[in-house]
Amino acid sequence: MADKNRYVIGFDLGGTKMIGAVVQGERIVSRCKKKTGAEQGPEAVLSRIASVIKTVVKDAGLTAGDIEGISMAVPGPHDREKGIMVYTPNLGFRDFPIKELLGKKVGIAISLENDVNAGTYGEYKLGAGRGLKHVIGLFPGTGIGGGIVLNGRLYRGATGNAGEIGHMIIQADGALCGCGRHGCLEALASRTALSKEAVAAASAGKAPATFAVAGSDFKKYKSGVFAEAYKHNEKAIIDIVERSARYLGIGMANCVNIFNPELFILGGGVVEKLGKTYVDLAEKSMRAHALEHLSKEVKVVEAQLGDDAVLLGAAHLLLDEWTV
Amino acid sequence: MADKNRYVIGFDLGGTKMIGAVVQGERIVSRCKKKTGAEQGPEAVLSRIASVIKTVVKDAGLTAGDIEGISMAVPGPHDREKGIMVYTPNLGFRDFPIKELLGKKVGIAISLENDVNAGTYGEYKLGAGRGLKHVIGLFPGTGIGGGIVLNGRLYRGATGNAGEIGHMIIQADGALCGCGRHGCLEALASRTALSKEAVAAASAGKAPATFAVAGSDFKKYKSGVFAEAYKHNEKAIIDIVERSARYLGIGMANCVNIFNPELFILGGGVVEKLGKTYVDLAEKSMRAHALEHLSKEVKVVEAQLGDDAVLLGAAHLLLDEWTV
Repeated sequence: MADKNRYVIGFDLGGTKMIGAVVQGERIVSRCKKKTGAEQGPEAVLSRIASVIKTVVKDAGLTAGDIEGISMAVPGPHDREKGIMVYTPNLGFRDFPIKELLGKKVGIAISLENDVNAGTYGEYKLGAGRGLKHVIGLFPGTGIGGGIVLNGRLYRGATGNAGEIGHMIIQADGALCGCGRHGCLEALASRTALSKEAVAAASAGKAPATFAVAGSDFKKYKSGVFAEAYKHNEKAIIDIVERSARYLGIGMANCVNIFNPELFILGGGVVEKLGKTYVDLAEKSMRAHALEHLSKEVKVVEAQLGDDAVLLGAAHLLLDEWTV
Repeated sequence: MADKNRYVIGFDLGGTKMIGAVVQGERIVSRCKKKTGAEQGPEAVLSRIASVIKTVVKDAGLTAGDIEGISMAVPGPHDREKGIMVYTPNLGFRDFPIKELLGKKVGIAISLENDVNAGTYGEYKLGAGRGLKHVIGLFPGTGIGGGIVLNGRLYRGATGNAGEIGHMIIQADGALCGCGRHGCLEALASRTALSKEAVAAASAGKAPATFAVAGSDFKKYKSGVFAEAYKHNEKAIIDIVERSARYLGIGMANCVNIFNPELFILGGGVVEKLGKTYVDLAEKSMRAHALEHLSKEVKVVEAQLGDDAVLLGAAHLLLDEWTV
């Protein structure tokens, strides 16, 4: 039976930071954040995770026995059943049995989730997607993460790794993607793709205001640079953003035609910095490229919960799926 | 409670022919086929449907009261709840309330299904997909129909029209599609796309054996022509088939990355005529374009049930969903 007062831990294990939180219903009772420090190796990361968990349990005035479970959102492919992180390049983890090792350290049951799936589920349950049943989350950043809620449940696929919308090919034989293939959505519409184009344009003298801010250093081309370019009405960069958003809209249109969803939730750095400007561009392209009888009822909104989406989503996946 | 002895009618309403059948479990008890005759208008088609239904009920030795329901597979978008065929160009139906009108004529409850969804479900339940849970059907023909079974159930989406995999854009700004957009999978990998390329190549003198069979008449470029071209080892046409199958594989790869399925079932005229040759080409391309950790367990097979897939799938959707 569902007990709304149950405590669970939502955990967001990222490449640069980790956040853990004790969650009760919609409420975050306690929270703790640390640097991931992946360069120190898996054992050090594991110890830090355990320490974050112990901290949030203590700060909530609880003991391990009060917590029903930990739902850990991880980046990259994992074996959900066995609790193994298969391969996570930006953490340096390979075939890492985190469920078993961490379980021993903290004495609480652990389940793994894909981080973007957790974020999408959080927005669906408690954020921008409340009350709907068919929701797709898209988070352009270094890559493009995707999460899919169908019939009110997270869709995981046969082996738990569904939702790689960023690797949908929308331009056969197009731009090279980080995955080694060509023309993937994320090769055309991620923040990385934007940064590539922008650093080249600025370095070629086509965007002086942007060059003044970020120069020719690719690493400085973060999401904020694009917001700045809009303030300076820097046409070369605006063109790049518009083309990129148009591609995102093509990816969204493909999802419309396949999934017949009610809502897209867009999040991540680019969306946060450019807001409605970017969302409107993507939405317009989605409507131009999707079948009309499928797109007419679809809405497109910004994510609402920021970092909490992953924590809350992970926690609620555990609550909801144990309840069902 | 599920009664395995229940009788239902599966009905396949196509652009050129209609087939109805009384179905009991896996068995087709009686069957009747007529030309659709869409050129005579909706009322005439409706009368013919009613006559097919009355025939199969009578031939099964039953009366209308013995039939639990009719599950009618229709081409094109429809409003499932209201039982209206919204727009079906090749039947000339627009906002046609078939559920109400036909219900009055035959005295049996009617539900509508998309024909490709029904075909995919039929293969999933009784054909090539038996025993699995995550299955995608793709049927290249005039267009490319798609059907999606997730977690053992047909996925219909928010308004019942999910699964338009043929209109997934895989080459942004690519070849013109019948839907008016560019670069859709069906613009690149349908039989129509094959025929366009082949008639041009043959007419330009690049495929003499094919020209001898089909000349320069586009309408003669049916699926059999491509099988003939393989027999004559006609390189220009084989190249066209290979390119087309490669595109189909890209569309399949996108489905792998998004859905994490177990199986693809390929059907339709091209697949039937070219068989393993074509399926292997598509599979090879799928594996080259999908993320490896998602594609490695996926199988690709030919459909097994032919025309019966739609009849049986429609019937079983009704049986299963009323049972659940």
